[in-house]
Amino acid sequence: MKQKISIGLFGFGTVGQSVYKVLSGVKNANARISRICVRDLTKSRAVAVDPAIITDNPDDIFADPEINLIVEVVDDAAASYRIVTMALRRGVPVVSGSKAMIARHLPELIALQREHGAALLYDASSCGSIPVIRNLEEYYDNDLLLEVKGILNGSSNYILSRVFDHNEGYDVALDKAQKLGFAESDPSFDLSGMDSLFKLVIITVHAVGVYVDPDQVFTYGISTIHDADIRYAREKGVKIKLVAQVAKIDEERFTMFVMPEFVSPSKYIYSVDNEYNGVVIRGECYDRQFMFGKGAGGLPTASSILSDVMARSYGYRYEYKKMSYIDLPRYCNDVLLRVYVHYDTTDIPELLPFECVHEQFISKESKYIIGDIRLSVLMESRDLLSANDVFVANIPLSFIDLDD
Amino acid sequence: MKQKISIGLFGFGTVGQSVYKVLSGVKNANARISRICVRDLTKSRAVAVDPAIITDNPDDIFADPEINLIVEVVDDAAASYRIVTMALRRGVPVVSGSKAMIARHLPELIALQREHGAALLYDASSCGSIPVIRNLEEYYDNDLLLEVKGILNGSSNYILSRVFDHNEGYDVALDKAQKLGFAESDPSFDLSGMDSLFKLVIITVHAVGVYVDPDQVFTYGISTIHDADIRYAREKGVKIKLVAQVAKIDEERFTMFVMPEFVSPSKYIYSVDNEYNGVVIRGECYDRQFMFGKGAGGLPTASSILSDVMARSYGYRYEYKKMSYIDLPRYCNDVLLRVYVHYDTTDIPELLPFECVHEQFISKESKYIIGDIRLSVLMESRDLLSANDVFVANIPLSFIDLDD
Repeated sequence: MKQKISIGLFGFGTVGQSVYKVLSGVKNANARISRICVRDLTKSRAVAVDPAIITDNPDDIFADPEINLIVEVVDDAAASYRIVTMALRRGVPVVSGSKAMIARHLPELIALQREHGAALLYDASSCGSIPVIRNLEEYYDNDLLLEVKGILNGSSNYILSRVFDHNEGYDVALDKAQKLGFAESDPSFDLSGMDSLFKLVIITVHAVGVYVDPDQVFTYGISTIHDADIRYAREKGVKIKLVAQVAKIDEERFTMFVMPEFVSPSKYIYSVDNEYNGVVIRGECYDRQFMFGKGAGGLPTASSILSDVMARSYGYRYEYKKMSYIDLPRYCNDVLLRVYVHYDTTDIPELLPFECVHEQFISKESKYIIGDIRLSVLMESRDLLSANDVFVANIPLSFIDLDD
Repeated sequence: MKQKISIGLFGFGTVGQSVYKVLSGVKNANARISRICVRDLTKSRAVAVDPAIITDNPDDIFADPEINLIVEVVDDAAASYRIVTMALRRGVPVVSGSKAMIARHLPELIALQREHGAALLYDASSCGSIPVIRNLEEYYDNDLLLEVKGILNGSSNYILSRVFDHNEGYDVALDKAQKLGFAESDPSFDLSGMDSLFKLVIITVHAVGVYVDPDQVFTYGISTIHDADIRYAREKGVKIKLVAQVAKIDEERFTMFVMPEFVSPSKYIYSVDNEYNGVVIRGECYDRQFMFGKGAGGLPTASSILSDVMARSYGYRYEYKKMSYIDLPRYCNDVLLRVYVHYDTTDIPELLPFECVHEQFISKESKYIIGDIRLSVLMESRDLLSANDVFVANIPLSFIDLDD
């Protein structure tokens, strides 16, 4: 039943070295790393490895008939795409943690898996050590599921935690996140919401059965946050969190977006602090379930990769069950959201066609407006907003359905 | 790939009716209930069902060649045992929610599954809607796992919540729990910790790979709680929760027990209130993961049964992977715990051989002692303690290892 796993590992940075360490320490893994491919052979690394198994030539892995699993943790989406597609085309299963690459290419990667009969597992790509993908695929594999919502990015959450709970400045907190290794090599990837977006796109495939192109999804990050916004949130007794969500509107439609949100203390995600991730899964019978764990860092990611490696030893693959369901809902962003918009440039309110304005505040230091606006309008205005250093936060309500 | 499921349902009480309702409402389940076996045909039921599919003769289900899955939610361990073993012997897979029966008979049920090639799934038996068993079996299927600890019983937790957060009397809270349908038909099953124990025994098989007879595990419930204990906990800023845990002591040994615990606000389970369950999974690389959801009630249990039914349509079965691991740890209760012991009968301190006493308090209204005691000693003294209306609560520490 159980197959012996011989791994070709691509990438030997923080995550790659953690994978090596974890696999070496696990007695019953039945898997070993037999080859490691790196970009730069001369780079010194903290983890000591037999130099004979290290190579800079991918073919040393692809041509090795002993290797029956490729684990890919390179920090470069283009290289990751080449490795994963080449492996699948050769019928070799792959475990990958490259959310950006997977989110961009998932339809093709699903087709390749089917065509060549090779599996691609990527639970590490979403929420580090929390088994979100596997649970959505296997356990919440029915149409009772209504919503998946959560904090999917550890480094932006770490920064917001430092700011809210420790009164640190945004820049100080960002610096710390990078020093602790929570932030990606390019922090704008975390702060702009892109990292959360890619995870959300992957989650949506396994939650709803529909692939949505990342470019079609409204995504707004935290880098335009101002002290005034933090003060405002504190006065209201809420925290600002970067939240990603996909939710059914009705039987026919679902919506999704990534943006800062005012989170009140009664919500599960309110207590998700520091580099932790937390995901709420809402369904028709079980109400809300909450999963919480470390979402960033080498070891948590490595433990998730280990789970995928072990799953391969039993021949596990994603079936993408929901994609074959009848009457799949369609993606829609024609819903109303209530948002808080902080701006400096005075013409922002005229440029943003609110359906209804609830509050408007103007002082010398700070200007904000709270109103209902279509998600599709926010989507069109995104570049304008970020170019003008505007901060936007969702004030969660039930979605206001425009078809009614 | 996907098999059409025709279900024979045993039991049509709260859970059985919820299973029927949920399955009727799910478009893509690919499963339907074709026969329902009840004990009493004349009993009136809230959910309307075609009378032609209802029977009181189990053979109508066992002899039906169309039925390829038995779902068993009867509220009677002996009947449940007969149904499950008969189904497995005939090679028919079963989904069961009967924790007491499963915890008592798991070794035999595993042997029957292997012998007859039929699967038994029982995720609903532990923590209602939280997929604990499936995740321990599939995702935490490696020896990184160090501990599983949680609130596994919804009704005792509901009662403690009402007492702590709403200042209600214990009896008022118990009455409410029963009216809301959270408590088992015999509430002593919940309050004595037996329900948590049975779940813990099942969890331990999937967490550690070892079956431990329920009778070998120290289990102490909440029914001896006094107002003085509640006051004491409030003064210390902690809550009393009924906690079940299994934890590795070292590579060779693990321990497990169920007892009330003083839970401080920094712990994840502190915020698990009302009928909710919460489980913390601690591991070597991912630190702590927390899963939280509804642990009691017809619909949450039914949604869990639905997940097992769907899993059967893909041929899923538990492999009991960890049971085949080399060097399995052995169960051991020779560890020291720090406990709070509230008593009325004055000779309790002499009867309990504490290794070390940290605090002793005596007043006219209340007497308690805090000290370190071996789990094995608590186990031997259990009947004496409960006969004397003694309340015992764990004050969590790292286990003090007696072999050192």
